[in-house]
Order: sequence, then structure tokens, then C-alpha cells
Amino acid sequence: MRVLVMGASLRPGSFNVTLAELAAAMLRDRAVEVDLARYAEFLVPGYDAGVEVADGVPEGARRFAERLQAVDAFVLVSPEYNASVPGTLKNLVDWVSRLKPQPFWGHHGLLLSASPRLTGGNRGLWALRVPLEHLGARMFPEMVSVAQADEAFTVDGRLADENQAKRLVRTIDGFLELVSAVRR
Amino acid sequence: MRVLVMGASLRPGSFNVTLAELAAAMLRDRAVEVDLARYAEFLVPGYDAGVEVADGVPEGARRFAERLQAVDAFVLVSPEYNASVPGTLKNLVDWVSRLKPQPFWGHHGLLLSASPRLTGGNRGLWALRVPLEHLGARMFPEMVSVAQADEAFTVDGRLADENQAKRLVRTIDGFLELVSAVRR
Amino acid sequence: MRVLVMGASLRPGSFNVTLAELAAAMLRDRAVEVDLARYAEFLVPGYDAGVEVADGVPEGARRFAERLQAVDAFVLVSPEYNASVPGTLKNLVDWVSRLKPQPFWGHHGLLLSASPRLTGGNRGLWALRVPLEHLGARMFPEMVSVAQADEAFTVDGRLADENQAKRLVRTIDGFLELVSAVRR
Amino acid sequence: MRVLVMGASLRPGSFNVTLAELAAAMLRDRAVEVDLARYAEFLVPGYDAGVEVADGVPEGARRFAERLQAVDAFVLVSPEYNASVPGTLKNLVDWVSRLKPQPFWGHHGLLLSASPRLTGGNRGLWALRVPLEHLGARMFPEMVSVAQADEAFTVDGRLADENQAKRLVRTIDGFLELVSAVRR
Repeated sequence: MRVLVMGASLRPGSFNVTLAELAAAMLRDRAVEVDLARYAEFLVPGYDAGVEVADGVPEGARRFAERLQAVDAFVLVSPEYNASVPGTLKNLVDWVSRLKPQPFWGHHGLLLSASPRLTGGNRGLWALRVPLEHLGARMFPEMVSVAQADEAFTVDGRLADENQAKRLVRTIDGFLELVSAVRR
Repeated sequence: MRVLVMGASLRPGSFNVTLAELAAAMLRDRAVEVDLARYAEFLVPGYDAGVEVADGVPEGARRFAERLQAVDAFVLVSPEYNASVPGTLKNLVDWVSRLKPQPFWGHHGLLLSASPRLTGGNRGLWALRVPLEHLGARMFPEMVSVAQADEAFTVDGRLADENQAKRLVRTIDGFLELVSAVRR
Repeated sequence: MRVLVMGASLRPGSFNVTLAELAAAMLRDRAVEVDLARYAEFLVPGYDAGVEVADGVPEGARRFAERLQAVDAFVLVSPEYNASVPGTLKNLVDWVSRLKPQPFWGHHGLLLSASPRLTGGNRGLWALRVPLEHLGARMFPEMVSVAQADEAFTVDGRLADENQAKRLVRTIDGFLELVSAVRR
Repeated sequence: MRVLVMGASLRPGSFNVTLAELAAAMLRDRAVEVDLARYAEFLVPGYDAGVEVADGVPEGARRFAERLQAVDAFVLVSPEYNASVPGTLKNLVDWVSRLKPQPFWGHHGLLLSASPRLTGGNRGLWALRVPLEHLGARMFPEMVSVAQADEAFTVDGRLADENQAKRLVRTIDGFLELVSAVRR
């Protein structure tokens, strides 16, 4: 099985990138082939219908779609901005959705988030589910939002809290079980 | 495969019950064993923690949970009330969620809606996804909302518009394919 | 100025009722005439179009509408059930919305929540905004969700945490300022 | 009274720009001073915390914030992308929200949408409300979403359908009434 994992933050040491790396390591431990993508590989300008007509969908979005086509499932790790999805990530989704056949359709996805706040990034993930499900992605119902992320990780990038670590294990295992079943 | 189908309306001839019956017929045509439930079988009072402590979860919610446990997947057909989920259906979900093990967890679900409005019942379905996914149900991303339902059905309960009929076929087939794969 | 305040829980000592009583006390301190309503005064059966045709809108919903008509603004204090609005409260809103003229239209409202969870009841409040705004209520943008409510209140029903107490003061003062301006 | 009006589309003849121009004309008829902004004046790159630290908030977002500070209220006319807010508009909001004092706080806003779809752009507007209300903007509950926008406008940019035209008049008048009351 192959899985694309991306932390949707441009800052190298961001909590969301750290969580993406942890998820990637957990997947590799479970014999999954992981494509750990950097968000900076998919930079695109703001959506502009005029640009689309003149120049087509930009390179960054095409590249994301190709990486998505090459895997069985994807894991997005996204911060929450203003109680919703980051505009920059939604903009990438908007561009990708313009390709035909529509790249998200039928793909299985899992959403994670890390946030320094007490309340985590759960609202951002719910806002991100809507366009992805609208595009036909099959989003796993369980999502993990790591709260107080500034204290959540050990120096070697694992989750310090045992319950939270267990919850992440359970969620990833449940997701892989579903994707395996569908692949067979 | 066994599927529970319920139109969440108490009115016998309601558009949502009509659509539930159509979905049930389509499932039976695909060799699925259908439990076509009537909403009236699951009447419960408004959630009240005091009642729960004194008398436990009411009979209607227990019955719904049993029917859910006996199937591989469920189809809910729900009207939209005030741009959201009907309070009465959410209240049934609230009661059912109090049972242990939590009955929705891991169950595959599909949401449909019928509405006399031009805009259909899509917002109600999105509002209904949230608690169901929160409870761990694996909701199918595609949903069908039949708009202008007062003109949408033929006298024998099929969809008059060919494109809409095709969309319903495609959605139900996609859902069954997923549930079959997971069952194997 | 007159304000209706209701904690949407039937349990007398519930955190949401405690928070409603605190809000009511704060409003009285600001020379507002408060109608502190008990949720049990507005018990209604699950919405049923057949019942509506036969018997009209039930007494509990009519009573709520009358109380709403008699005030300049309302404060609802609601728990969160399954990441969304309690079905029982949404059901009351559904019944109230059947009255003509529609009772919520143009009324200013404020939403508060108390929850034993770390994450508070914020998602429930966002889900409650949608039908109320759909019905034309003018919901105040700021909302206060008291997290870890089992430790949040002092024995005399005030908020133990100074920052949280200040936030509630600021929100209520902002709300009253808006309602006063509109009344003039 | 001064109101900022912006259609969040870069295409000059887009339905949303047409609707923004109609709203601007209606406001001027009501003796409101209108700042009709073009979306292209506020182009910003995707949010990047590194860029923010190095170079601060980009010019486009600062300019939007200044225009917002100079008015009593704002009207945003936004398309719906993938059942949600356009990523590019959310990204502008994300950048603007980084300025201190936070520019949206306490500002009154109205949301409109135009869409060629039968179902209009209502879901996009609801998704846009969340971050704006989170940022403390006081969003007017009524919103107008012009469906089937390719046939909705007359050649001189008015709404062809009388009921829809009346609804827009009622919504704008209600909004102005509220903003006037609060200004006094």
C-alpha cells in the first residue's frame, strides 16, 4: 500500500509538519510505502479563472494530483486558521479540483491537526472535510487533533501523552484496515 | 449484505419516505437484504439526563440500535429543517449514542434527502454528517438531495428526471461497492 | 431593556443552567430586566407534520414564542451533544419556527455553552447558529464556551478563572451595547 | 454612512462582480457613500509564517484593512468553490487577521453570492461566515444567493426575477437599518 502524507505548513519545524513526520513513521512501521510530501512543492497562485483559461492549471496543483494518483490513500495534516481551513490549503484544493478526471474522487483520506491551542484544530478539520467530501474523497470519520502542540511532542517527535499516542495508533490502524479492505 | 433504510419522517406519503422506498427497491434489485424501517418505530422523548439515570435509554432508541447492529450498512433519508438536521432525528441520534458499545461506531452510512425546494436538502445532510461521523460512522461522501420533490417522482415512485435517476444509481452502486469491499 | 435567558438543560444543577444563572445575574447588575426561563417550561414532542395539522403548534413552543416576543434580546446557554446542537433544543426551534410571524426573525441573540470537556461546547454553538440565523435571528458573533466546567465555577456560581470571567463580561457588555443601539 | 463593497472574483464580467455592482448602485440610491473595491487590488501570496516574520503582512492585505477601517460596514460578494469559501478569499482573510488591532473586529458585514448553479452559493457563504464571525465581525443573518446567475441579470445589471429583486432590496434595507442604528 502507498500513502501520500503532507503537513500543510511551509515552516519546516511546524507542529503540523512534525505530526506529518510522525504519521509517516508510523505508516512505515506498518509496511506502508510513504510519499512524505513537503507543502512547498505545491505552491500555486490564488485561483484565477483567467489564468486557468490562458495557462491551464498551475504546475504545483498538477504535481499534487500526480502524487495523489500514485497512491492508495492520503493523509493531510493541517493547521486551523480562524476557526476554519487555511485559505492557502483550500486554494490548492480548488486548483486541483479543476483537473479532469477530478483527482480527489474516490480517494481515501485521513485528516490530522496539531495546534498550540487547548482546543486543538478540530474546527479546521471539519471545514476541510466539506470540500474534500464534496469532491468525492472518502474521508475517514475519525480525525486526530493534537492540542497544546507546543508541549505535546517529545524531542524525538513522538507524542508525550500516552492516551493521545494510543488514539493516533488506533486511528491510523483503523484507516489502514479500511483502505486495505477496499484495495483487495 | 443487509442494509437498514429509514426515511426520517412520520408522514406516510412524505417525499423522504417515498425516496427511502425507492432506495430500498433499488437495493433489493441488487440482491441486498433490506430492513425498511418506519420512523414511527423509534419514537423517543427529548433527551433528559435525569430520565436516562432513572429509566435508562428509551425503548425506541434501543430498538434502532438493535436494527443497526443487525445490518452491514444504513441509509438515512432525511428532510432538512431550518437549514439543518431535524431536531427530532438528531434527538434519536443523541439517545442512541448513549448506548455502549456506541451503535454507530464503524458502521457505513449513506445520506439522502428529498425537498420541495429548488435547493434541495443538502445543508441538512451536511449538518447530519457531523454527529454521525463524530460517533465514528463511516459516511459515504456522495449524498443525493432530490430538489423540487413535489414534481420529482413518477406515480410509481421512480425519479422522473433521467440524470437524477442515474445519479442515484451511481451513488447507491458506489456505496454498495465500498461496503462489499469492507465486508470481505 | 428586557432579555430572555435560558439554559437548555433539564437537569437543575447542570453546568449550562449554572452559566445561564450567572449570565442572568450579570444582566441584572447592568439594569437589564431578565426573564430567566427554565427549559422544562417548553417541553414539546418531536416535530410531526400530522400533529401540526391536527392540533397546531404545541403549547411549549407557543409559550417560548410569547416569551421571546416580550423581550428585546435572548441568551441561550446550550450543551453540545455529539459535536452538534442537542436534538431536543433544535426540535424546540423547529416547532417555534412554524409560528407566523416567525418568532426568531430580527431578534438579537447571544449563545453561551458550558462543558466538562477541555474543548468546550463551541462546535455545538456553531451548529446552533445556523438554524437561528437562517430564521433571521441576529446572532452576536462572540460566543463564550466554558471548558472543563466541572472545575470552572466557584461555589457561589461565578467563574473561577479571571480571564474567562473577563471574557464573559466583555461579551455580555458588547452584546448589550449592540442591542441598546438598535433599540434606540 | 460609508460601505465597502467587493466582489471576490478576478474576472471583470463575473456574476459576483455584477452582483457587487448592483449592490453598490442600490446603496448609492440610499445615500450611502460606497467604496466599490476590485478584488485585484488585494492580491496576496499564500499565507506563510516565515514571510510574515521576515516581511510583515503583505501590501494587499494592509490595503484591504485600511479600506475596511475607513467604512461603517462591508458587503462581500463571493462565489462558492467546492461547497465552501474560495481558498483565495479565505487566504486574504487569513492575512488580514494578522494585523493588530484585528481589522474585522466589530465591523458589520453582509454576504451575497451569485452562482450559475440551481442551488446558488449558499454553502460557500455559510463557510465564509465562520472565520469572519470568529474574528468578531457582526455578520448580518440574512444572505442573498442568486442562483442560475447566467439567466438572473438583465442587460443593465438588475435582477430579472421580481421576487429575487425584492428579497435583495429587503436584505440591504434591513442591513442598513441595523448599521444606522448602531452608528447613532
